[in-house]
Amino acid sequence: MPAWQAYLDENKTRFTDEMLDFLRIPSISSLPEHAADVRQAGEWVVRRMQAAGIENVAMMETGDRFPGHPVVYGDWLHAPGKPTVLIYGHFDVQPVDPVDLWDSPPFEPVIKDGRVYARGSNDDKGNMLVPILAVEALLQSEGKLPVNIKFFIEGQEEIGSPTLPPFVAANQDKFICDMVLSADGGQWSDTQPELAVALRGLCAMQINVTGPNRDVHSGMAGGAIQNPIHALVRLLDSMRNPDGKIAVEGFYDQVRALTEEEREQIAAIPYKEEEYRAQLGLSALFGEPGYSTRERTWARPTLELNGIWGGFQGKGTKTVIPSTAHAKITCRLVADQDPAQVIERLQAHIAKHTPAGVQITVDVEASASKPYLMPADHPGNDAARDVHLELYGKEPYYARSGGSIPFCALFHTMLGVYTVNFGFALPDERQHSPNEFFRLHNFEKGQKAYCMLLHRLSQIGKP
Amino acid sequence: MPAWQAYLDENKTRFTDEMLDFLRIPSISSLPEHAADVRQAGEWVVRRMQAAGIENVAMMETGDRFPGHPVVYGDWLHAPGKPTVLIYGHFDVQPVDPVDLWDSPPFEPVIKDGRVYARGSNDDKGNMLVPILAVEALLQSEGKLPVNIKFFIEGQEEIGSPTLPPFVAANQDKFICDMVLSADGGQWSDTQPELAVALRGLCAMQINVTGPNRDVHSGMAGGAIQNPIHALVRLLDSMRNPDGKIAVEGFYDQVRALTEEEREQIAAIPYKEEEYRAQLGLSALFGEPGYSTRERTWARPTLELNGIWGGFQGKGTKTVIPSTAHAKITCRLVADQDPAQVIERLQAHIAKHTPAGVQITVDVEASASKPYLMPADHPGNDAARDVHLELYGKEPYYARSGGSIPFCALFHTMLGVYTVNFGFALPDERQHSPNEFFRLHNFEKGQKAYCMLLHRLSQIGKP
Repeated sequence: MPAWQAYLDENKTRFTDEMLDFLRIPSISSLPEHAADVRQAGEWVVRRMQAAGIENVAMMETGDRFPGHPVVYGDWLHAPGKPTVLIYGHFDVQPVDPVDLWDSPPFEPVIKDGRVYARGSNDDKGNMLVPILAVEALLQSEGKLPVNIKFFIEGQEEIGSPTLPPFVAANQDKFICDMVLSADGGQWSDTQPELAVALRGLCAMQINVTGPNRDVHSGMAGGAIQNPIHALVRLLDSMRNPDGKIAVEGFYDQVRALTEEEREQIAAIPYKEEEYRAQLGLSALFGEPGYSTRERTWARPTLELNGIWGGFQGKGTKTVIPSTAHAKITCRLVADQDPAQVIERLQAHIAKHTPAGVQITVDVEASASKPYLMPADHPGNDAARDVHLELYGKEPYYARSGGSIPFCALFHTMLGVYTVNFGFALPDERQHSPNEFFRLHNFEKGQKAYCMLLHRLSQIGKP
Repeated sequence: MPAWQAYLDENKTRFTDEMLDFLRIPSISSLPEHAADVRQAGEWVVRRMQAAGIENVAMMETGDRFPGHPVVYGDWLHAPGKPTVLIYGHFDVQPVDPVDLWDSPPFEPVIKDGRVYARGSNDDKGNMLVPILAVEALLQSEGKLPVNIKFFIEGQEEIGSPTLPPFVAANQDKFICDMVLSADGGQWSDTQPELAVALRGLCAMQINVTGPNRDVHSGMAGGAIQNPIHALVRLLDSMRNPDGKIAVEGFYDQVRALTEEEREQIAAIPYKEEEYRAQLGLSALFGEPGYSTRERTWARPTLELNGIWGGFQGKGTKTVIPSTAHAKITCRLVADQDPAQVIERLQAHIAKHTPAGVQITVDVEASASKPYLMPADHPGNDAARDVHLELYGKEPYYARSGGSIPFCALFHTMLGVYTVNFGFALPDERQHSPNEFFRLHNFEKGQKAYCMLLHRLSQIGKP
């Protein structure tokens, strides 16, 4: 047994107690009234990293007003000739609504059947504590680390990391590294490891249609003027063909086509499509022709209407033609789409398809994220694969996600490095939902895996 | 000077004071907490009709639960061989929101510059008091009336008279008459009389689209399932061509085409189309090709989206695909469309155009109203025209309204009689809005006009 394993075993109870302590801080990043709690969680991370033997630990400010939550940085850079690995995680959490669906209070962690129940246990406090504890174990048992390490633990992941781009740009030199390991993520299942190789990007806008300068009577004006809801409906319908293909001119222009190899990699991962359909209570799945359901969510862009409103929403009837109508749109993007360019094409489409008799304005959401796609055979992935083979006895799936994590694309764009997914959450652990939990055996397996991975990474040399 | 004119002059101040008294009762029919006030207004009408010498005055119940507000009935039937005229009006009023826009409290009437400011002054309390006072003047000055009179004064006009149809059906014999005079309506302007010959009908529904059984993440599910908002938008867009023509199969089948004479009658009425456009702040008016703006609102049916909602309506972005999306639709109908048949055609269209991957339900609004169209040369109209010529020195406009008054179609359907518009409100008197008012000189002119009209109607003999 390696010395670090003995250290992990000896300190198991203390580590769990520390996680519970950390989980008691209600660090909800979306709510201004919890801004001080987010900062307190950051301070907790500072102290814990210092206690682990990490050096140059500091709280870095990302903005002087909400939601500019701080980043905690720390490093250990005494492995000359070895790669520098930046470890990513976040100490902010999602809101807890609806709170009455929780079996125990979200910020009073409870251990039951080998699981820790609390908001943030899975996403990402329990998960992000893992590499800090692994580093402590290596430093305590071996006196040094096998590679150079930088920690970048942020406090605004759950709100899309809005102030990180300028912050990273301004501190680029400090974060130079050879690769990133993300401790925000998970494995396919308790018995099946996974390496995530792609995330979709995101851009967003709100469309505002204005007709008459006030709500008018549908009896008096009906027939004589353009109805803003009709106009909005027409515009939105023009953006998508009935078969689900997006009809915005140039929308797919920058999309990198899936290679046969990539399609095979995706098809190799088991998918219970029928179960998915039934779980959602749907009569049928639906999407862009020519692609499998998994390809549609993992490797094809979308244009989704996230919200729509205008006029009367109450009970019964109100015979009004409203002055305005609105819709929220987000697009999920895939390599090599650029959010700014997609927004431009949407704006051109809107300008071209604005119905007669109304005016349309567009509010573009500032926070966009680029799509992320890494080579499946990145050296970091190869090292992680070896660890997985040893720990799980199985090849990992080279999976993708339909979601967006701005961080991965941000670091790729600004620092030219890829992010290796190395987290130990599982998909059934109710992240973002009531009764979120984290399995204690994966909290421990993760610590072991990080010790193993850092040793392996020292063998690949400095890329 | 006729004796009734002397009586009206002598009692002018008292009549005005009585109107103010009546206006102090907050008889808002849409609000359950004002149900007792509506009844109190009905009791006020009972007492006032009795004082006028009207016989058999009674409060009649229309239903035993809200909104079954009562009807006040009264008659005077001692003119054998003469026509029987039923006089219609209502004692309920609209809500007063936004109350802070009123210059004086809505139920504390104020006289200023010859106008009475109060909720209901124009619509319809001031207006409906007019024929009662005229009848009193005739009875007091001549000892009898020139025709047989029935009064039908209701308390639920402002909510679409939902319980009247079964009530009228159950009391058909009591309301038999030769024509109806409506004291709920007005003249074109202070110098231009009007006879309204058509009203549009109305039918209404809510469309509910259901996709996944819960809101889902647009990253995880986006691309794989039908988005209920997309599906709703597609369905609604299929109901109308881009040029404004309704595309629901069979929608126009029952529409009686405008005759050349009717088009000329409509075109003869001056219309400041450019002023209308500018008042609404619109770049252009818009509507069904082949018809003038006035024809579109007066003589063509519409399908309007009165409300739409689904998903996220807040600030910023929420990457959700909602479980449901909804829309409210009303159609304005013209002769000879039948609301039930139009609803059927809409339902057939929805069934045929339901997009894949969602389920759609329709809630049909129970209260519908048929379109109303009367012959311009109805004997009641001819008699009213003679009165207008004498009082205004002008031919009345044979106008229509894009709105709907269920009462006119209801009495035509159930009793086979037409309603002659004989009210003295004016379009600038802010009905339904803050600072509603009624001109005192029209309150008086109306009393005179009713005395003249009832005498003229006695000359046409029993039709």
